[in-house]
Amino acid sequence: MSRVRVHSFSVSLDGYGAGPDQSVQDPLGRGAEQLHEWVFATARWTEEYGGDGSGRGVDDEVLREADVGVGATVMGRNMFGPLRGEWPPDDTWRGWWGEDPPYHHPVFVLTHHPRPPLVMDGGTTFHFVTDGLEAALARAVEAADGQDVRLGGGVSTVQAALRANLVDELNLAVVPLLLGSGERLFDDGVPEPVGYRCTRLLASTGVVHVRMERAAASTDGGTIPPPG
Amino acid sequence: MSRVRVHSFSVSLDGYGAGPDQSVQDPLGRGAEQLHEWVFATARWTEEYGGDGSGRGVDDEVLREADVGVGATVMGRNMFGPLRGEWPPDDTWRGWWGEDPPYHHPVFVLTHHPRPPLVMDGGTTFHFVTDGLEAALARAVEAADGQDVRLGGGVSTVQAALRANLVDELNLAVVPLLLGSGERLFDDGVPEPVGYRCTRLLASTGVVHVRMERAAASTDGGTIPPPG
Repeated sequence: MSRVRVHSFSVSLDGYGAGPDQSVQDPLGRGAEQLHEWVFATARWTEEYGGDGSGRGVDDEVLREADVGVGATVMGRNMFGPLRGEWPPDDTWRGWWGEDPPYHHPVFVLTHHPRPPLVMDGGTTFHFVTDGLEAALARAVEAADGQDVRLGGGVSTVQAALRANLVDELNLAVVPLLLGSGERLFDDGVPEPVGYRCTRLLASTGVVHVRMERAAASTDGGTIPPPG
Repeated sequence: MSRVRVHSFSVSLDGYGAGPDQSVQDPLGRGAEQLHEWVFATARWTEEYGGDGSGRGVDDEVLREADVGVGATVMGRNMFGPLRGEWPPDDTWRGWWGEDPPYHHPVFVLTHHPRPPLVMDGGTTFHFVTDGLEAALARAVEAADGQDVRLGGGVSTVQAALRANLVDELNLAVVPLLLGSGERLFDDGVPEPVGYRCTRLLASTGVVHVRMERAAASTDGGTIPPPG
């Protein structure tokens, strides 16, 4: 059965997954690029996007896990691009990743505005889903054909999925810096996801990788409470 | 010069240092005992308080650091005891720790209610300070006589010290569980401490120890911005 997995989702020590004042020029918000420096330092990133990172330690290994056994991806619109509102008619915005995006499988983009599928090189097709997160995940599970579904960001997309109890595995990268403000993953005043336990804890020299998994309902009708 | 250090301050993955619904019966708040299980599992804790913990790994080592080079302690009243309001006239509440508390040096307790010093066995004297955190830290620095000052909890005491830029070294233990509500160390809507950087990151099997240190003002009049 397909599982929904979040990978390498970076949060600051004070809990922020994106900085304040997000804009087209600064899509992650002020200061938040520091959350992702560990990614740029890996050999995996350099293989895919260039740069001079050559790290092959824990961070690199963890980053590579995100692609293993994944047959489809769901992401929020802000992760697909900085545009808001109606899509421009000319299809000029084709994602951040160039003509051969690193997915190589169907990607379902959450949006309020319909748009025909966008077929890219290398096996990636972007599908634009206007009927919500649950519908997008259902389509992704079908497209993944027995493999898992990766859920990308941003913060609000992961939050929504956690609160709807739709995430099976949450892999956070806790970055030890104080961002001070921005978008919290675990925000105040809203119900917290329940039923998760830590199944792996790994520190590199600069980042802590925390894997939280939802406890499965026990098969004997039994003692592990079902999530939710 | 004395430095002000916070040690082994446990916070959940979602940022809480204490649970909701704190009371005399449940001084850490609901669910928060889980934040401290790693402490009870150490040989250090067992030596001081009994129990059956025998761990001698990373958690034990980190816990022991809290006593090294410390000549005085400051703590909030709630860490000294569950009582609120005026002190009872009979001096019956003498702290959580029995007649020989594990401090063996002067301890300054923040309170709004005056009380004479309480001399315990083993070199610990509790002094009750009614003129605020800065005054308590100043007295502790003097009493520490060149050694460092340890700043104990609770959450609000550490928060106040961070925001007044009075903490030189903040050692957090991030516990990978979701507490869901309670008292956050890094709370929304208040200025965040600035000028801290991570100087050590260590994971045990169950806890991540993060050391944040305030950048010292550079001696060449220079490039490292002073905190605050």
